Amino acid sequence: MRAFVVLMCFLALGCLAQRPHPCTSPPLLSGALTVATQNEKLWAYAKYLYDALGQRTRLFEMGTYQNQSFTYDVLLLYRQGVMYEIDDKNKKCTKKPLKIDFHPMEIPKDASLLGQAIVGSSSGPGQGLLVNTWMGDLPQSAGKYMSTVTEFGCIPVSTTYHTDQFGWVVTNLFDNVIGILDPQYLNPPPFCQEAEMTTDDGEEPVSFFSLFTKRH
Amino acid sequence: MRAFVVLMCFLALGCLAQRPHPCTSPPLLSGALTVATQNEKLWAYAKYLYDALGQRTRLFEMGTYQNQSFTYDVLLLYRQGVMYEIDDKNKKCTKKPLKIDFHPMEIPKDASLLGQAIVGSSSGPGQGLLVNTWMGDLPQSAGKYMSTVTEFGCIPVSTTYHTDQFGWVVTNLFDNVIGILDPQYLNPPPFCQEAEMTTDDGEEPVSFFSLFTKRH
Repeated sequence: MRAFVVLMCFLALGCLAQRPHPCTSPPLLSGALTVATQNEKLWAYAKYLYDALGQRTRLFEMGTYQNQSFTYDVLLLYRQGVMYEIDDKNKKCTKKPLKIDFHPMEIPKDASLLGQAIVGSSSGPGQGLLVNTWMGDLPQSAGKYMSTVTEFGCIPVSTTYHTDQFGWVVTNLFDNVIGILDPQYLNPPPFCQEAEMTTDDGEEPVSFFSLFTKRH
Repeated sequence: MRAFVVLMCFLALGCLAQRPHPCTSPPLLSGALTVATQNEKLWAYAKYLYDALGQRTRLFEMGTYQNQSFTYDVLLLYRQGVMYEIDDKNKKCTKKPLKIDFHPMEIPKDASLLGQAIVGSSSGPGQGLLVNTWMGDLPQSAGKYMSTVTEFGCIPVSTTYHTDQFGWVVTNLFDNVIGILDPQYLNPPPFCQEAEMTTDDGEEPVSFFSLFTKRH
């Protein structure tokens, strides 16, 4: 019995003493985010649905770009290689090729831990949140990124990276829930059925983040 | 008995349905913060001690200002109207007048609620933090500020405001605990006893935040 208790203590301490590891966020998430850029060209608020199982994302954005306000509603179907720009009010739809692979929300394996921190306070219940902040290199030597996720659940909190177009781009995610709030928004609406594929030659591939910048 | 249950339900719902109110942070806090500026002139990390009862603050800073790294250690005694710039390594001390009133960490009564949000997720225990974000006007028409504090405990999370010198200044606070980690750091060290008051004519008054900018 004593040996068992000692073993349990070791296991418990082993878990507590464990360094944070890169992690993958839950495959189904719904929530909201804001994007702010250093040069103030772009500011956006979006509600998002994220389905890593079906490789689908929907974004309902509103914001300002170069002092002009905009709204943008887009559905990304990575498996089919298709994106729909949706104008629900006028029941119009633009179908475009989606040329990039789906990337799940995750901390890449080669990221390095910048640090662990409590947002708020650990002094009282409900007062704090344990988060890990990671750094790494963007693909294609495009610079560095910094990502913060919760220790429990690997829920995305914020991402910062640098672009030539905007300087630093800060994305804060919040009001996340595990699951898809409204699955129908991950299918194209009926009025998209007849949309024909339009090809914009010269456009860059679309990623989760470049969506905030591409349509302008 | 039934009346009692109904009353309890009303009280409980009343509490749950309550809109967030401006609040004052705990009078004793220790923690850390980072300051980042839009024009990248200044970046700083600091450990802080905050004593609203004794009106004293200590900051241990390190960072970069105009691409040069610095460290800065300062003790602010508002009641005495004195600040000490402390060089612990060389046991040197500069004593200066502190010309401004103490301002507690709080959301001012006239602030307006921008919104309530969950950082992380409400889907699992330990995954999320309920916060309130407030907006208001800086004193002397110096612009707007935005402050986020936890719903439970009124723990500071972040503050954003605009200055002519730096553009947007973003302060993130973390690893906060209620209480003073090391009370001796809120008294001047022995080698400060003999420091004579130096007066810098033309310097602006010192506030919690201007300390990140003033010594350059």
